[in-house]
Amino acid sequence: MDIIEMRKFRRREQGEKMKVKDVGERALISTIHRLQAIVPMGYLGIGDDAAYLPPSPAGWLISQDMLVEGVHFRFDWITPEQLGEKAVAVNISDIAAMGGIPKAILTSIAVPGNFDVEVIEALYRGMAKALDRYGAVLVGGDTVSSPDKFTLDVSVVGHPGAKGPVLLSGAKPGDRLFVTGRLGASYAGYMLLCHNVSWPSTSIQHRSVLQAHLAPVARVEAGQQLGALAHAMTDISDGLVNELKAMTRFGGIGARIEAERVPIDQATQMVAKEYGQDALDFALYGGEDYELLAAVPPSRAREAELLCLRCGVPITEIGVVTDTLGIHVMRDGEELAVDERKGFHHFALDQD
Amino acid sequence: MDIIEMRKFRRREQGEKMKVKDVGERALISTIHRLQAIVPMGYLGIGDDAAYLPPSPAGWLISQDMLVEGVHFRFDWITPEQLGEKAVAVNISDIAAMGGIPKAILTSIAVPGNFDVEVIEALYRGMAKALDRYGAVLVGGDTVSSPDKFTLDVSVVGHPGAKGPVLLSGAKPGDRLFVTGRLGASYAGYMLLCHNVSWPSTSIQHRSVLQAHLAPVARVEAGQQLGALAHAMTDISDGLVNELKAMTRFGGIGARIEAERVPIDQATQMVAKEYGQDALDFALYGGEDYELLAAVPPSRAREAELLCLRCGVPITEIGVVTDTLGIHVMRDGEELAVDERKGFHHFALDQD
Repeated sequence: MDIIEMRKFRRREQGEKMKVKDVGERALISTIHRLQAIVPMGYLGIGDDAAYLPPSPAGWLISQDMLVEGVHFRFDWITPEQLGEKAVAVNISDIAAMGGIPKAILTSIAVPGNFDVEVIEALYRGMAKALDRYGAVLVGGDTVSSPDKFTLDVSVVGHPGAKGPVLLSGAKPGDRLFVTGRLGASYAGYMLLCHNVSWPSTSIQHRSVLQAHLAPVARVEAGQQLGALAHAMTDISDGLVNELKAMTRFGGIGARIEAERVPIDQATQMVAKEYGQDALDFALYGGEDYELLAAVPPSRAREAELLCLRCGVPITEIGVVTDTLGIHVMRDGEELAVDERKGFHHFALDQD
Repeated sequence: MDIIEMRKFRRREQGEKMKVKDVGERALISTIHRLQAIVPMGYLGIGDDAAYLPPSPAGWLISQDMLVEGVHFRFDWITPEQLGEKAVAVNISDIAAMGGIPKAILTSIAVPGNFDVEVIEALYRGMAKALDRYGAVLVGGDTVSSPDKFTLDVSVVGHPGAKGPVLLSGAKPGDRLFVTGRLGASYAGYMLLCHNVSWPSTSIQHRSVLQAHLAPVARVEAGQQLGALAHAMTDISDGLVNELKAMTRFGGIGARIEAERVPIDQATQMVAKEYGQDALDFALYGGEDYELLAAVPPSRAREAELLCLRCGVPITEIGVVTDTLGIHVMRDGEELAVDERKGFHHFALDQD
């Protein structure tokens, strides 16, 4: 039993919880280290000034995402373990969106001193669980104190797929637009949480959309399969319309999608109905779905579907890239007004 | 004039400052992008899901450091531009400590909505200035809102030097211990700030130590030179004693240093005297100096000195690695008590 364990043991004997401020950074790092998988040969891990990523003939992809308590999550909505899992998944989703293979993460946390050490342990257990799932390891980061809110910033590095990084740009007129999985479920989950329906809810539909919001899954394997065929790809973190706008930003192109084809599951439909909302809006503007959106040349469309299904991920063709500007959403032969400012963003600043 | 400039123009006409919440993330990213140098060929920059680092036969080094308002900095002490410069410098110092060559950074910021956009612009101007100095570029990151405090997390990536990464461990008994520059100045600057002497002070000595604290310089070139010879190296971010302890953690070794040899400049001596303190304590326990500490085999000691001086960086031999445990500080032939918990840490959690 090391010193951190001993202190914890004594405190637990006394029915007290150990606080971060009683432990100090080095002991906290030891705990974090112990909770993680062994860092493979070639990587140098936690404890030195910098981590080392071995040579890769394909180069490296790197992305960074920050989550702030009270902005991106609330501890009365999400368990620390779910938060750890989600923080890793949403970062790895950025690597999946480039058709890449995640390899390692670095995690910086800013922790208020009166935080329970148990919460940090649970957080890193959640991260370890997600890292196991995606075959990546924790190689470094930073642990600092915060005066008030808990903040978590994760960097993820990975290799590009065999054809190199798949960019957001590169879509061509005539490309078929595909999305993986289902859309809008995360927003449905968020809506439940806003109405005090918390995890784990008793209803199976509620659990399904809460799960989508609290424990999203990155589409790593599907990303590699689609990435080998796609002209352009991204993950749907900010709602389908915003991602389509981002994808068609350059080159004088646009997109036309069929509302009926947008994959929205029954649980999401049910929750939308419960609150008098249109589930399509959840899918178009809701965000945090972490499904993939890919523009695939028509000649490879059937192949894309097959490859994706072969790795167990549903895939749906929802529309086409056009040679005119703008995002057009068709329903029953009529065009719906697309409102990019539609009020489905959680936070004033986090619009993208 | 783009839309952000136009809005700013109108607001300035009316004598108002533009707030972050009025602008949104995408406009903020455009501003940030405009302030940065062109991303070189081979790197893919801001705006995609992940940034791309080209293949490197030597691999990559990566490090991440978080700075929190009210914990690591206060806006009444440091200008936003200085903060940007410092955030980049302290991260690049971790690459320098591995003997590496910095190449790119990613920056995540969490910004309260009522923040002036001008502050963010100044921050990124400071970063751009530092990146220019060190020959690195901004390739990505995240911009989110914060309910309260400003938080900044920087990741830096770089190449290892010709001999690979220089680790913290690896020192051998008999190795000579060298430090670059001067120690304790940053803490002297911190002490002034705590006593309401702010930048720019009228005294040249005050300016010198305030500069050391507010705008430290990473020893990138010296790091590459020393790294080619050193058995072990690190940057002195947590005070000399803590770094010596970290360096001698494994292998049954220790260190003996001569207090008289520890490089402390006159400005630091003066400030310590002003507040009835021992300047040696600033150097041993103060932290945030970002100088290098290297363990060099005796046969290469003179070479290390020469190479370092040739790149214009002062270097001092302060002691030796021993084959017994413990850090021994000698002054006038007597051993000083080394107190690892000596109260020179700024913050309860940030002990390392």
